[in-house]
Amino acid sequence: MSASPLRVGIIGVGMMGADHADRIVHRIAGAELVAISDPDSERAGDLAARYDGVRTVGDPLQLIAGSGVDAVLIASPGSVHEEQVLACVEHGKYALCEKPLTMDSESSLRVVEAERNKAGRPLVQVGFMRRFDPEYARMKRLLDSGDLGRILLVHNTHRNKTLPKWFRSEMIVSDSLVHEVDVCRWLFDDEIATITVLAPKPTSRAAEGMLDPQVAIFQMAGGGMATTEVFVNSQIGYEVRCEAVAELGNVTVGLGQDVFVRSDNHYGGHIPDDFRDRFARAYDLEVQAWVDASRRGEVVGPTTWDGYAATAVCTAALQSLATGRPVRVDLADRAEVLRGAAT
Amino acid sequence: MSASPLRVGIIGVGMMGADHADRIVHRIAGAELVAISDPDSERAGDLAARYDGVRTVGDPLQLIAGSGVDAVLIASPGSVHEEQVLACVEHGKYALCEKPLTMDSESSLRVVEAERNKAGRPLVQVGFMRRFDPEYARMKRLLDSGDLGRILLVHNTHRNKTLPKWFRSEMIVSDSLVHEVDVCRWLFDDEIATITVLAPKPTSRAAEGMLDPQVAIFQMAGGGMATTEVFVNSQIGYEVRCEAVAELGNVTVGLGQDVFVRSDNHYGGHIPDDFRDRFARAYDLEVQAWVDASRRGEVVGPTTWDGYAATAVCTAALQSLATGRPVRVDLADRAEVLRGAAT
Amino acid sequence: MSASPLRVGIIGVGMMGADHADRIVHRIAGAELVAISDPDSERAGDLAARYDGVRTVGDPLQLIAGSGVDAVLIASPGSVHEEQVLACVEHGKYALCEKPLTMDSESSLRVVEAERNKAGRPLVQVGFMRRFDPEYARMKRLLDSGDLGRILLVHNTHRNKTLPKWFRSEMIVSDSLVHEVDVCRWLFDDEIATITVLAPKPTSRAAEGMLDPQVAIFQMAGGGMATTEVFVNSQIGYEVRCEAVAELGNVTVGLGQDVFVRSDNHYGGHIPDDFRDRFARAYDLEVQAWVDASRRGEVVGPTTWDGYAATAVCTAALQSLATGRPVRVDLADRAEVLRGAAT
Amino acid sequence: MSASPLRVGIIGVGMMGADHADRIVHRIAGAELVAISDPDSERAGDLAARYDGVRTVGDPLQLIAGSGVDAVLIASPGSVHEEQVLACVEHGKYALCEKPLTMDSESSLRVVEAERNKAGRPLVQVGFMRRFDPEYARMKRLLDSGDLGRILLVHNTHRNKTLPKWFRSEMIVSDSLVHEVDVCRWLFDDEIATITVLAPKPTSRAAEGMLDPQVAIFQMAGGGMATTEVFVNSQIGYEVRCEAVAELGNVTVGLGQDVFVRSDNHYGGHIPDDFRDRFARAYDLEVQAWVDASRRGEVVGPTTWDGYAATAVCTAALQSLATGRPVRVDLADRAEVLRGAAT
Repeated sequence: MSASPLRVGIIGVGMMGADHADRIVHRIAGAELVAISDPDSERAGDLAARYDGVRTVGDPLQLIAGSGVDAVLIASPGSVHEEQVLACVEHGKYALCEKPLTMDSESSLRVVEAERNKAGRPLVQVGFMRRFDPEYARMKRLLDSGDLGRILLVHNTHRNKTLPKWFRSEMIVSDSLVHEVDVCRWLFDDEIATITVLAPKPTSRAAEGMLDPQVAIFQMAGGGMATTEVFVNSQIGYEVRCEAVAELGNVTVGLGQDVFVRSDNHYGGHIPDDFRDRFARAYDLEVQAWVDASRRGEVVGPTTWDGYAATAVCTAALQSLATGRPVRVDLADRAEVLRGAAT
Repeated sequence: MSASPLRVGIIGVGMMGADHADRIVHRIAGAELVAISDPDSERAGDLAARYDGVRTVGDPLQLIAGSGVDAVLIASPGSVHEEQVLACVEHGKYALCEKPLTMDSESSLRVVEAERNKAGRPLVQVGFMRRFDPEYARMKRLLDSGDLGRILLVHNTHRNKTLPKWFRSEMIVSDSLVHEVDVCRWLFDDEIATITVLAPKPTSRAAEGMLDPQVAIFQMAGGGMATTEVFVNSQIGYEVRCEAVAELGNVTVGLGQDVFVRSDNHYGGHIPDDFRDRFARAYDLEVQAWVDASRRGEVVGPTTWDGYAATAVCTAALQSLATGRPVRVDLADRAEVLRGAAT
Repeated sequence: MSASPLRVGIIGVGMMGADHADRIVHRIAGAELVAISDPDSERAGDLAARYDGVRTVGDPLQLIAGSGVDAVLIASPGSVHEEQVLACVEHGKYALCEKPLTMDSESSLRVVEAERNKAGRPLVQVGFMRRFDPEYARMKRLLDSGDLGRILLVHNTHRNKTLPKWFRSEMIVSDSLVHEVDVCRWLFDDEIATITVLAPKPTSRAAEGMLDPQVAIFQMAGGGMATTEVFVNSQIGYEVRCEAVAELGNVTVGLGQDVFVRSDNHYGGHIPDDFRDRFARAYDLEVQAWVDASRRGEVVGPTTWDGYAATAVCTAALQSLATGRPVRVDLADRAEVLRGAAT
Repeated sequence: MSASPLRVGIIGVGMMGADHADRIVHRIAGAELVAISDPDSERAGDLAARYDGVRTVGDPLQLIAGSGVDAVLIASPGSVHEEQVLACVEHGKYALCEKPLTMDSESSLRVVEAERNKAGRPLVQVGFMRRFDPEYARMKRLLDSGDLGRILLVHNTHRNKTLPKWFRSEMIVSDSLVHEVDVCRWLFDDEIATITVLAPKPTSRAAEGMLDPQVAIFQMAGGGMATTEVFVNSQIGYEVRCEAVAELGNVTVGLGQDVFVRSDNHYGGHIPDDFRDRFARAYDLEVQAWVDASRRGEVVGPTTWDGYAATAVCTAALQSLATGRPVRVDLADRAEVLRGAAT
């Protein structure tokens, strides 16, 4: 791996792009955000000003071509993806392109071909992020392990609490269902051969003329099947679940309780082996908080007083363990000890 | 925040320290690992060799004093914590000190006092990481919100699958129970006044003479109470749970299903509002994977072919939605399109 | 209600009919089993011999016509249901007819018409037992309450662990799916207008030529929709679940945790008000066990010694509550007290 | 088993006794309620009038002595239990005595001795009904199976939503904790040797002077331990849970999801083998509803129309399965078919 950080440019800093900017600056190791491009130059400027050393570039193609950028995160509207991705391929830049890759099959195929012909190797990653969700990833590994036999059926649920008025029926397919299209292709490791999309009488909570919810049925080339409910005005919240049914059992993710398996007259899940598994994220957050606070010249989290008090309690606990009796904890007077200290 | 990354040194690179090294290099933004110190110089050298630009320092106090180190992560044995933390205070270095702060109350109190007297402000964070676990943190916020009224009782469970033979009864208190000591002090925002530790007839799975499991009862200064089971040879796995009982309801974490609340004839939990909440970690992992792969000169995750296939399916889906009929998906021949490309 | 018990005859005592016989004799109040009819006279005789006062009748129509029978439970094969149900209608006998009512629509319609024309009032209940399952019944009440708005979609899962070789593809529809047909008609309070049944590539665990699993899509006359997976060789166990999606939330039953509701950024369920709700079944089982044991001349369950020991502990508990100290429990010597007693 | 039903008398028809009366008349096979006694003769008369053939008896001892009563259910206040249970023993009547057996250890011991000396065999069952709860019973069987090794610890939770003002601190022990006393004695198959009861600062929701919640610690004679929280003004609802920790795993009941087991890096529970297990209660309720309706001269539940409609749908389903196409369901006109019928 290269010793120097990856210099990243972001194109499009609406909700998604701004979220990615924050991510790269505050939570991603080995990368630095160096450039931003957005048609709304004020929005771009405001965002760049929040971080050190980030410049704005008016023309996204110039951002892509620039020698100071190693990789480009494309979070612009789908209608300009083709041009921008092709430019990345042209200049040999790595790209992470938010879905959809492009607006129709023909242009998407052109991108595939350009990558093969001009770069001769993959440069572009498409933003199907379910594959990186720890639950989905574990489900995939479990299915691939063969322990549950061949995968037969998948049932997806994809619900949003509400979506804005401008969200139309077709976007349920292109913006929402597209994720489950990728999930099914990935889980079955197969292409979708036939698709049926049906809509019951719509919820009264959707805008006039909106077909919401919708039910899609996928028939896979190899004989598998999948059902998917997409319901973008469910009033419930954001619910994304997937149940994969295999010959010897089924796996569900998105229940808020990790990977849930049913097989052999048993339902259940995994209990981790140790704290590195259970608390991996807590340790990451602890150290990130410590790094951030130290850079600000502060301390957050448990203080030396907390360390002292815990030690005093444990000392008393050991006496109680030896005698089986209640033991009083002897603590110094906190106000007195800390008198005069800045907190 | 400082523009340049925080230069971190790690003292002690056993299991915990090595885990922290990996964390700082691969998952933490804004920090760089610059120095390692360990009495086992071979272990230190091996670890340093894995990363770019990390040097080893024989004497931990020299690492602390060095001008190239901004902050020190202390993961050495508890018996040398006092000296090392005091050195950090002396040199005005930020420190994250793994628990326990020191081995006894007197030395811990000396650290508290040194920090006040020499630094006059907090420099040291103690490694009580439960406070950074997202579930514990949400439980704390919920309790602090007052929605459930005053906290009355806490029930903790702390189980390890097995621990090595050299783990003795007293370490159940000083290494395990110490976490729940901090949890209770934090949740009640109060000191522990009296502690009782009882042990039932030990499990036959523990080493001879080992008191395992143990049950601790805390009586808080303000009248609260807590029970804690610590069982380090439970054979089950790593189970850390906490149930806080307040006047109007109770909250449980560690069930593997986020914060679980019971109140007003109802049990349940939260469904997130949108994808940024539900999939925050997936996006972090996606972008980190992209950054890491780009630095290695590779692409991981969904390719342009995946983007193309998804677009083709969505195009067919829109036709089906309009007609209510099954629609075949028309895909180019993959092998032909990708012929000659490196994959 | 009539003071005397309902005299019940059962036709067909295979697995289902024998189960009903046991139910009526041992768990149902206000009924007595008086007659059994089965083509296999030995099977009928063996079963009748297990109970007091149950006679066998060779001809099922004679059982129905007999003056000593008030009501008939029909658990014979579906092919003879029409004749037997019509006979019940003819003789004005109440009937509980296991599904299917008859083998085809025409004959079923004849039964509906005969009941109207000859009895002029309902006499026959069909064995769609999901409606009596406490979870399904609560889901129905919740949906009918209007609290979740109009019902839009239903997703059913119906899995058997394995079924015998003689179970054919068509029986998945007529014996399994038929339950979900009734569930959807009942939940939507509407008829099914269109049905599609699709089958993915079958599991290798099914017999040759068997289409298993199957996925059915119902379009209701009023615009609702339902998807149902039936999988009768799932290897998992018996899983029957139903998720009903309404305009303001969804309800799921069959998760093994009663009615589970998601609405308004919240998932959860009901915590009962008191012990009569939580332990209703335990009280029923306790009293039934006591009645059964008393009729056999025995005592089961907690004895007077258990009552005595509990009282002794509570006495000590009250002392501890007053003093905050551990109190030893003073018990008589059990062996000595019970010496010579039959146990 | 005796062919004739068990003739039951009930003493005390407050909330609990009236509930038992209803149970025996409507849900228990093989028993008939014949007599009721209560100091409040109007209350007794009102209840008796609801059922056929139930007489009231002023003097409870006369009810016990009467030749028409085979068995007595004692639901009177604890203060008169001793006299009534002794009378049952005297007259050789089976008794189910609600807890507590009597008010103090001495009188309880007298009952034990009288039963041994006068009856020479058990006649009295004490109302510790947790043992009959299906979840507790399965937990006990699992622990007794030895699969989880020796039982080490038990953690009980016993919460009421609210209790009336007249409920005093001592009753938390004698009326609530007493159930967990029995649960622990039963699960450990051992006596409680030492008990400690502690109370944190009470909830503001309890009456003045009330110690609520309370935490009890049991040390069993054989070395086991148990903790129990009793909280009778929890504002939450009725929560009764029990977690038993054994050498190789733990079992929890009362989570509303049957028996929940954690062992060997796995949590989970049982999926039933077939419908008789999953829907046993639904079948009981279905048949009981049918019997009750038949005795009233009514039909409840699914009608012949429901049977007909289901058959028509299944017929269409089979066509769809054969063709893979949607099939319309052809139904007769319901209003026309049922015209003139009483519904």
